[in-house]
Amino acid sequence: MGTEKETLDRLFDFFREIDKEKLIVRQNYITGCERKETDAEHAWHAALMCALLSRYSNNKIDVLKAVTMILIHDIVEIDAGDTYAYDDEGKKTQHERELKAADRIFGILPDDDAEYLRTLWEEFEQSETAEAKFAHVMDNIQPIMLNDNTNGKSWREHNVALSQMHTRNKKTHEGSQILWDYVYKNIVMPNIEKGNIIDDLKK
Amino acid sequence: MGTEKETLDRLFDFFREIDKEKLIVRQNYITGCERKETDAEHAWHAALMCALLSRYSNNKIDVLKAVTMILIHDIVEIDAGDTYAYDDEGKKTQHERELKAADRIFGILPDDDAEYLRTLWEEFEQSETAEAKFAHVMDNIQPIMLNDNTNGKSWREHNVALSQMHTRNKKTHEGSQILWDYVYKNIVMPNIEKGNIIDDLKK
Repeated sequence: MGTEKETLDRLFDFFREIDKEKLIVRQNYITGCERKETDAEHAWHAALMCALLSRYSNNKIDVLKAVTMILIHDIVEIDAGDTYAYDDEGKKTQHERELKAADRIFGILPDDDAEYLRTLWEEFEQSETAEAKFAHVMDNIQPIMLNDNTNGKSWREHNVALSQMHTRNKKTHEGSQILWDYVYKNIVMPNIEKGNIIDDLKK
Repeated sequence: MGTEKETLDRLFDFFREIDKEKLIVRQNYITGCERKETDAEHAWHAALMCALLSRYSNNKIDVLKAVTMILIHDIVEIDAGDTYAYDDEGKKTQHERELKAADRIFGILPDDDAEYLRTLWEEFEQSETAEAKFAHVMDNIQPIMLNDNTNGKSWREHNVALSQMHTRNKKTHEGSQILWDYVYKNIVMPNIEKGNIIDDLKK
Protein backbone atom coordinates (compact mmCIF):
# COMPACT_ATOMS: atom_id res chain seq x y z
CA MET A 1 0.00 0.00 0.00
CA GLY A 2 1.28 3.43 -0.92
CA THR A 3 0.41 6.77 0.60
CA GLU A 4 -3.00 8.30 0.03
CA LYS A 5 -1.50 10.54 -2.64
CA GLU A 6 0.05 7.57 -4.45
CA THR A 7 -3.29 5.74 -4.33
CA LEU A 8 -5.13 8.76 -5.71
CA ASP A 9 -2.47 9.32 -8.38
CA ARG A 10 -3.06 5.78 -9.66
CA LEU A 11 -6.85 6.18 -9.56
CA PHE A 12 -6.65 9.43 -11.52
CA ASP A 13 -4.13 7.94 -13.97
CA PHE A 14 -6.73 5.25 -14.63
CA PHE A 15 -9.50 7.85 -15.08
CA ARG A 16 -7.32 9.71 -17.61
CA GLU A 17 -6.51 6.48 -19.45
CA ILE A 18 -10.11 5.31 -19.77
CA ASP A 19 -11.05 8.60 -21.42
CA LYS A 20 -9.84 6.78 -24.56
CA GLU A 21 -12.96 4.60 -24.42
CA LYS A 22 -14.68 7.63 -26.02
CA LEU A 23 -12.49 7.11 -29.09
CA ILE A 24 -13.74 3.55 -29.66
CA VAL A 25 -16.55 3.64 -32.20
CA ARG A 26 -19.16 0.89 -32.41
CA GLN A 27 -21.17 -0.12 -35.47
CA ASN A 28 -24.52 1.21 -34.27
CA TYR A 29 -25.80 4.64 -35.23
CA ILE A 30 -27.24 7.08 -32.72
CA THR A 31 -30.48 9.05 -33.17
CA GLY A 32 -30.35 10.99 -36.43
CA CYS A 33 -27.73 8.63 -37.92
CA GLU A 34 -25.14 11.40 -38.25
CA ARG A 35 -22.56 9.27 -36.51
CA LYS A 36 -21.98 5.95 -34.77
CA GLU A 37 -22.07 5.37 -31.03
CA THR A 38 -18.92 5.34 -28.88
CA ASP A 39 -18.15 2.61 -26.35
CA ALA A 40 -18.53 5.09 -23.47
CA GLU A 41 -22.00 6.10 -24.68
CA HIS A 42 -23.04 2.46 -25.04
CA ALA A 43 -21.86 1.72 -21.51
CA TRP A 44 -23.77 4.72 -20.12
CA HIS A 45 -26.95 3.69 -21.91
CA ALA A 46 -26.74 0.04 -20.88
CA ALA A 47 -25.86 0.92 -17.26
CA LEU A 48 -28.90 3.17 -16.95
CA MET A 49 -31.09 0.48 -18.50
CA CYS A 50 -29.73 -1.93 -15.90
CA ALA A 51 -30.67 0.40 -13.04
CA LEU A 52 -34.25 0.62 -14.34
CA LEU A 53 -34.78 -2.95 -15.57
CA SER A 54 -33.17 -4.97 -12.76
CA ARG A 55 -36.60 -6.12 -11.52
CA TYR A 56 -36.90 -8.19 -14.71
CA SER A 57 -33.81 -10.28 -13.96
CA ASN A 58 -34.59 -14.02 -13.73
CA ASN A 59 -32.62 -14.11 -10.48
CA LYS A 60 -32.21 -11.50 -7.79
CA ILE A 61 -29.12 -9.42 -8.45
CA ASP A 62 -26.81 -6.97 -6.70
CA VAL A 63 -27.70 -4.02 -8.94
CA LEU A 64 -24.60 -1.94 -8.11
CA LYS A 65 -22.39 -4.88 -9.04
CA ALA A 66 -24.21 -5.35 -12.37
CA VAL A 67 -24.11 -1.61 -13.14
CA THR A 68 -20.38 -1.40 -12.33
CA MET A 69 -19.76 -4.46 -14.51
CA ILE A 70 -21.50 -2.71 -17.40
CA LEU A 71 -19.61 0.55 -16.83
CA ILE A 72 -16.27 -1.28 -17.16
CA HIS A 73 -17.11 -4.11 -19.59
CA ASP A 74 -15.66 -2.44 -22.69
CA ILE A 75 -12.57 -0.80 -21.18
CA VAL A 76 -10.38 -3.53 -22.69
CA GLU A 77 -11.44 -2.28 -26.14
CA ILE A 78 -9.16 0.75 -25.63
CA ASP A 79 -6.34 -1.61 -26.65
CA ALA A 80 -8.23 -4.47 -28.28
CA GLY A 81 -10.69 -2.42 -30.37
CA ASP A 82 -14.39 -3.06 -30.80
CA THR A 83 -15.18 -6.45 -32.26
CA TYR A 84 -18.51 -6.18 -34.06
CA ALA A 85 -21.12 -8.63 -32.77
CA TYR A 86 -21.29 -10.29 -36.18
CA ASP A 87 -17.56 -10.22 -37.08
CA ASP A 88 -16.70 -13.93 -36.98
CA GLU A 89 -13.04 -13.45 -38.03
CA GLY A 90 -12.36 -10.78 -35.40
CA LYS A 91 -13.92 -12.94 -32.74
CA LYS A 92 -11.19 -15.59 -33.13
CA THR A 93 -8.48 -13.38 -31.63
CA GLN A 94 -10.77 -11.22 -29.48
CA HIS A 95 -10.26 -12.98 -26.16
CA GLU A 96 -6.46 -12.99 -26.32
CA ARG A 97 -6.35 -9.31 -27.31
CA GLU A 98 -8.71 -8.41 -24.48
CA LEU A 99 -6.78 -10.33 -21.81
CA LYS A 100 -3.61 -8.38 -22.61
CA ALA A 101 -5.60 -5.14 -22.50
CA ALA A 102 -7.07 -6.04 -19.11
CA ASP A 103 -3.57 -6.67 -17.70
CA ARG A 104 -2.33 -3.28 -18.85
CA ILE A 105 -5.34 -1.06 -18.17
CA PHE A 106 -6.67 -2.44 -14.88
CA GLY A 107 -3.01 -2.66 -13.80
CA ILE A 108 -2.84 1.14 -13.71
CA LEU A 109 -5.12 1.12 -10.63
CA PRO A 110 -4.05 0.68 -7.00
CA ASP A 111 -3.60 -3.07 -6.42
CA ASP A 112 -6.90 -3.66 -4.59
CA ASP A 113 -8.95 -1.77 -7.17
CA ALA A 114 -7.11 -3.47 -10.02
CA GLU A 115 -7.94 -6.87 -8.53
CA TYR A 116 -11.58 -5.85 -8.01
CA LEU A 117 -12.16 -4.59 -11.56
CA ARG A 118 -10.18 -7.38 -13.19
CA THR A 119 -12.23 -9.99 -11.30
CA LEU A 120 -15.46 -8.18 -12.12
CA TRP A 121 -14.55 -8.04 -15.82
CA GLU A 122 -13.71 -11.75 -15.86
CA GLU A 123 -17.01 -12.50 -14.14
CA PHE A 124 -18.77 -10.57 -16.91
CA GLU A 125 -16.84 -12.44 -19.58
CA GLN A 126 -17.63 -15.84 -18.08
CA SER A 127 -21.32 -14.95 -17.81
CA GLU A 128 -22.17 -17.47 -15.14
CA THR A 129 -23.39 -15.41 -12.20
CA ALA A 130 -26.80 -13.72 -12.08
CA GLU A 131 -25.22 -10.26 -12.34
CA ALA A 132 -23.06 -11.22 -15.32
CA LYS A 133 -26.01 -12.82 -17.11
CA PHE A 134 -28.15 -9.75 -16.55
CA ALA A 135 -25.33 -7.40 -17.63
CA HIS A 136 -25.15 -9.40 -20.86
CA VAL A 137 -28.88 -8.89 -21.39
CA MET A 138 -28.27 -5.13 -21.25
CA ASP A 139 -25.20 -5.39 -23.49
CA ASN A 140 -27.26 -7.30 -26.05
CA ILE A 141 -30.61 -5.51 -26.01
CA GLN A 142 -29.24 -1.95 -25.91
CA PRO A 143 -27.86 -2.20 -29.47
CA ILE A 144 -31.03 -3.98 -30.68
CA MET A 145 -33.12 -1.10 -29.32
CA LEU A 146 -30.73 1.41 -30.86
CA ASN A 147 -30.68 -0.27 -34.25
CA ASP A 148 -34.46 -0.34 -34.28
CA ASN A 149 -34.43 3.36 -33.38
CA THR A 150 -32.30 4.12 -36.46
CA ASN A 151 -34.38 2.03 -38.86
CA GLY A 152 -31.94 -0.88 -38.81
CA LYS A 153 -29.22 1.07 -40.65
CA SER A 154 -26.34 -0.85 -39.10
CA TRP A 155 -28.06 -4.23 -39.54
CA ARG A 156 -28.64 -3.47 -43.21
CA GLU A 157 -25.06 -2.26 -43.76
CA HIS A 158 -23.76 -5.54 -42.35
CA ASN A 159 -26.44 -7.82 -43.86
CA VAL A 160 -27.22 -9.21 -40.43
CA ALA A 161 -29.24 -12.43 -40.57
CA LEU A 162 -31.65 -13.77 -38.00
CA SER A 163 -29.54 -16.89 -37.47
CA GLN A 164 -26.61 -14.68 -36.38
CA MET A 165 -28.86 -12.85 -33.97
CA HIS A 166 -30.06 -16.16 -32.53
CA THR A 167 -26.46 -17.32 -32.05
CA ARG A 168 -25.41 -14.09 -30.35
CA ASN A 169 -28.47 -14.19 -28.10
CA LYS A 170 -28.68 -17.86 -27.37
CA LYS A 171 -28.20 -17.18 -23.65
CA THR A 172 -29.90 -13.79 -23.34
CA HIS A 173 -33.03 -15.43 -21.90
CA GLU A 174 -30.88 -16.85 -19.06
CA GLY A 175 -30.52 -13.31 -17.70
CA SER A 176 -34.11 -12.23 -18.29
CA GLN A 177 -36.75 -14.33 -19.99
CA ILE A 178 -39.24 -11.45 -19.80
CA LEU A 179 -36.95 -8.92 -21.45
CA TRP A 180 -35.73 -11.24 -24.17
CA ASP A 181 -39.32 -12.28 -25.00
CA TYR A 182 -40.38 -8.62 -25.08
CA VAL A 183 -37.45 -7.51 -27.25
CA TYR A 184 -37.78 -10.45 -29.63
CA LYS A 185 -41.50 -9.97 -30.17
CA ASN A 186 -41.65 -6.16 -30.18
CA ILE A 187 -38.31 -5.15 -31.66
CA VAL A 188 -36.66 -8.04 -33.51
CA MET A 189 -39.75 -9.42 -35.27
CA PRO A 190 -40.94 -6.09 -36.70
CA ASN A 191 -37.43 -5.57 -38.14
CA ILE A 192 -37.61 -8.95 -39.86
CA GLU A 193 -40.90 -7.80 -41.40
CA LYS A 194 -39.26 -4.57 -42.58
CA GLY A 195 -36.33 -6.48 -44.09
CA ASN A 196 -33.83 -4.82 -41.75
CA ILE A 197 -32.82 -8.27 -40.49
CA ILE A 198 -32.51 -11.01 -43.12
CA ASP A 199 -34.77 -13.94 -42.31
CA ASP A 200 -32.55 -16.91 -43.17
CA LEU A 201 -34.53 -19.23 -40.91
CA LYS A 202 -37.76 -19.07 -42.89
CA LYS A 203 -39.22 -22.48 -43.55
CA MET B 1 -50.78 0.31 -13.50
CA GLY B 2 -50.84 -0.97 -17.07
CA THR B 3 -50.03 -4.42 -18.36
CA GLU B 4 -46.46 -5.66 -18.37
CA LYS B 5 -46.24 -4.86 -22.10
CA GLU B 6 -47.45 -1.29 -21.51
CA THR B 7 -44.89 -0.87 -18.73
CA LEU B 8 -42.08 -2.17 -20.93
CA ASP B 9 -43.23 -0.05 -23.86
CA ARG B 10 -42.87 3.07 -21.72
CA LEU B 11 -39.48 1.99 -20.37
CA PHE B 12 -38.21 1.36 -23.90
CA ASP B 13 -39.71 4.63 -25.16
CA PHE B 14 -37.65 6.34 -22.46
CA PHE B 15 -34.49 4.43 -23.47
CA ARG B 16 -35.03 5.52 -27.10
CA GLU B 17 -35.61 9.13 -26.04
CA ILE B 18 -32.51 9.40 -23.86
CA ASP B 19 -30.33 8.29 -26.78
CA LYS B 20 -30.47 12.02 -27.62
CA GLU B 21 -28.19 12.71 -24.65
CA LYS B 22 -25.40 11.58 -27.01
CA LEU B 23 -26.18 14.62 -29.18
CA ILE B 24 -25.53 17.11 -26.37
CA VAL B 25 -21.96 18.35 -26.63
CA ARG B 26 -20.10 19.77 -23.63
CA GLN B 27 -17.24 22.27 -23.71
CA ASN B 28 -14.50 19.87 -22.64
CA TYR B 29 -12.30 18.09 -25.14
CA ILE B 30 -11.57 14.38 -25.00
CA THR B 31 -8.11 12.79 -25.34
CA GLY B 32 -6.49 13.96 -28.57
CA CYS B 33 -8.68 17.10 -28.72
CA GLU B 34 -10.29 16.07 -32.01
CA ARG B 35 -13.73 16.68 -30.58
CA LYS B 36 -15.61 17.66 -27.44
CA GLU B 37 -17.20 15.26 -24.99
CA THR B 38 -20.90 14.34 -25.10
CA ASP B 39 -23.17 14.38 -22.07
CA ALA B 40 -23.54 10.60 -22.19
CA GLU B 41 -19.76 10.15 -22.15
CA HIS B 42 -19.40 12.55 -19.23
CA ALA B 43 -22.08 10.67 -17.28
CA TRP B 44 -20.36 7.33 -17.96
CA HIS B 45 -16.98 8.67 -16.84
CA ALA B 46 -18.33 10.33 -13.68
CA ALA B 47 -20.44 7.27 -12.76
CA LEU B 48 -17.43 4.97 -12.99
CA MET B 49 -15.36 7.42 -10.93
CA CYS B 50 -18.13 7.36 -8.33
CA ALA B 51 -18.02 3.56 -8.12
CA LEU B 52 -14.26 3.66 -7.49
CA LEU B 53 -13.99 6.77 -5.31
CA SER B 54 -16.99 6.34 -2.97
CA ARG B 55 -14.68 5.49 -0.06
CA TYR B 56 -13.51 9.11 -0.11
CA SER B 57 -16.98 10.54 0.56
CA ASN B 58 -17.13 12.64 3.74
CA ASN B 59 -20.25 10.71 4.73
CA LYS B 60 -21.21 7.11 4.09
CA ILE B 61 -23.26 6.87 0.92
CA ASP B 62 -25.55 4.44 -0.90
CA VAL B 63 -23.25 4.01 -3.90
CA LEU B 64 -25.93 2.66 -6.26
CA LYS B 65 -28.08 5.69 -5.53
CA ALA B 66 -25.20 8.08 -6.22
CA VAL B 67 -24.21 6.24 -9.41
CA THR B 68 -27.81 6.25 -10.68
CA MET B 69 -28.06 9.96 -9.87
CA ILE B 70 -24.98 10.60 -11.98
CA LEU B 71 -26.25 8.43 -14.84
CA ILE B 72 -29.43 10.54 -15.07
CA HIS B 73 -28.24 13.99 -13.94
CA ASP B 74 -27.91 15.47 -17.43
CA ILE B 75 -30.95 13.91 -19.11
CA VAL B 76 -32.81 17.24 -18.83
CA GLU B 77 -30.19 18.74 -21.15
CA ILE B 78 -31.83 16.86 -24.05
CA ASP B 79 -34.38 19.70 -24.03
CA ALA B 80 -32.59 22.38 -22.02
CA GLY B 81 -29.14 22.10 -23.63
CA ASP B 82 -25.81 22.10 -21.85
CA THR B 83 -25.18 25.22 -19.80
CA TYR B 84 -21.42 25.69 -19.59
CA ALA B 85 -20.12 25.81 -16.02
CA TYR B 86 -18.88 29.36 -16.55
CA ASP B 87 -21.82 30.74 -18.63
CA ASP B 88 -23.37 33.23 -16.20
CA GLU B 89 -26.08 34.42 -18.63
CA GLY B 90 -27.25 30.90 -19.48
CA LYS B 91 -27.39 30.02 -15.80
CA LYS B 92 -30.18 32.57 -15.19
CA THR B 93 -32.77 30.55 -17.14
CA GLN B 94 -31.20 27.14 -16.63
CA HIS B 95 -33.38 25.94 -13.78
CA GLU B 96 -36.69 26.81 -15.44
CA ARG B 97 -35.64 25.17 -18.71
CA GLU B 98 -34.53 22.05 -16.88
CA LEU B 99 -37.74 21.71 -14.84
CA LYS B 100 -39.83 21.66 -18.03
CA ALA B 101 -37.48 19.09 -19.52
CA ALA B 102 -37.75 16.89 -16.43
CA ASP B 103 -41.56 16.94 -16.67
CA ARG B 104 -41.51 15.83 -20.27
CA ILE B 105 -38.68 13.31 -20.31
CA PHE B 106 -39.13 11.52 -16.97
CA GLY B 107 -42.88 11.59 -17.76
CA ILE B 108 -42.31 9.09 -20.56
CA LEU B 109 -41.56 6.40 -17.96
CA PRO B 110 -44.12 4.22 -16.13
CA ASP B 111 -45.47 6.33 -13.24
CA ASP B 112 -43.44 4.71 -10.45
CA ASP B 113 -40.17 4.97 -12.38
CA ALA B 114 -40.97 8.54 -13.42
CA GLU B 115 -41.52 9.47 -9.79
CA TYR B 116 -38.31 7.70 -8.75
CA LEU B 117 -36.06 9.38 -11.32
CA ARG B 118 -37.71 12.77 -10.96
CA THR B 119 -37.18 12.68 -7.19
CA LEU B 120 -33.62 11.46 -7.62
CA TRP B 121 -32.86 14.27 -10.09
CA GLU B 122 -34.32 16.88 -7.71
CA GLU B 123 -32.25 15.44 -4.89
CA PHE B 124 -29.17 15.87 -7.06
CA GLU B 125 -30.13 19.44 -7.92
CA GLN B 126 -30.74 20.38 -4.27
CA SER B 127 -27.39 18.88 -3.27
CA GLU B 128 -28.24 18.37 0.37
CA THR B 129 -27.98 14.62 0.93
CA ALA B 130 -24.66 12.78 1.18
CA GLU B 131 -25.28 11.04 -2.17
CA ALA B 132 -26.14 14.29 -3.96
CA LYS B 133 -23.10 16.04 -2.50
CA PHE B 134 -20.81 13.21 -3.59
CA ALA B 135 -22.42 13.05 -7.05
CA HIS B 136 -21.63 16.76 -7.40
CA VAL B 137 -18.00 16.08 -6.51
CA MET B 138 -17.84 13.65 -9.45
CA ASP B 139 -19.70 16.08 -11.74
CA ASN B 140 -17.18 18.80 -10.86
CA ILE B 141 -13.88 16.94 -10.75
CA GLN B 142 -14.43 14.82 -13.88
CA PRO B 143 -14.21 17.88 -16.17
CA ILE B 144 -11.25 19.30 -14.20
CA MET B 145 -9.40 16.00 -14.71
CA LEU B 146 -10.38 15.98 -18.39
CA ASN B 147 -9.35 19.59 -18.97
CA ASP B 148 -5.99 18.90 -17.37
CA ASN B 149 -5.65 15.84 -19.62
CA THR B 150 -6.12 18.03 -22.72
CA ASN B 151 -3.69 20.75 -21.60
CA GLY B 152 -6.46 23.08 -20.45
CA LYS B 153 -7.71 23.71 -24.00
CA SER B 154 -11.31 24.38 -22.96
CA TRP B 155 -10.27 26.56 -19.99
CA ARG B 156 -8.08 28.64 -22.28
CA GLU B 157 -10.78 28.97 -24.95
CA HIS B 158 -13.17 30.31 -22.31
CA ASN B 159 -10.62 32.37 -20.34
CA VAL B 160 -11.63 30.59 -17.17
CA ALA B 161 -10.42 32.38 -14.04
CA LEU B 162 -9.60 30.89 -10.67
CA SER B 163 -12.33 32.96 -8.97
CA GLN B 164 -14.94 31.29 -11.24
CA MET B 165 -13.59 27.89 -10.35
CA HIS B 166 -13.77 28.74 -6.65
CA THR B 167 -17.40 29.86 -7.02
CA ARG B 168 -18.39 26.72 -8.92
CA ASN B 169 -16.63 24.52 -6.38
CA LYS B 170 -17.47 26.34 -3.19
CA LYS B 171 -19.32 23.26 -1.91
CA THR B 172 -17.27 20.49 -3.52
CA HIS B 173 -15.41 19.87 -0.25
CA GLU B 174 -18.77 19.13 1.43
CA GLY B 175 -18.95 15.91 -0.60
CA SER B 176 -15.32 14.93 -0.23
CA GLN B 177 -12.67 17.01 1.50
CA ILE B 178 -9.97 14.51 0.53
CA LEU B 179 -10.83 14.52 -3.17
CA TRP B 180 -11.23 18.28 -3.42
CA ASP B 181 -7.91 18.85 -1.63
CA TYR B 182 -6.21 16.32 -3.92
CA VAL B 183 -7.68 17.79 -7.10
CA TYR B 184 -6.98 21.37 -6.07
CA LYS B 185 -3.37 20.72 -5.19
CA ASN B 186 -2.47 18.23 -7.92
CA ILE B 187 -4.61 19.33 -10.85
CA VAL B 188 -5.89 22.89 -10.40
CA MET B 189 -2.69 24.46 -9.05
CA PRO B 190 -0.37 23.11 -11.76
CA ASN B 191 -2.78 24.52 -14.36
CA ILE B 192 -2.59 27.94 -12.74
CA GLU B 193 1.20 27.68 -13.04
CA LYS B 194 0.88 26.79 -16.72
CA GLY B 195 -1.48 29.71 -17.35
CA ASN B 196 -4.34 27.41 -18.36
CA ILE B 197 -6.44 28.93 -15.56
CA ILE B 198 -6.18 32.70 -15.09
CA ASP B 199 -5.09 33.56 -11.55
CA ASP B 200 -7.29 36.56 -10.76
CA LEU B 201 -6.95 36.02 -7.02
CA LYS B 202 -3.23 36.74 -6.86
CA LYS B 203 -2.36 39.16 -4.11
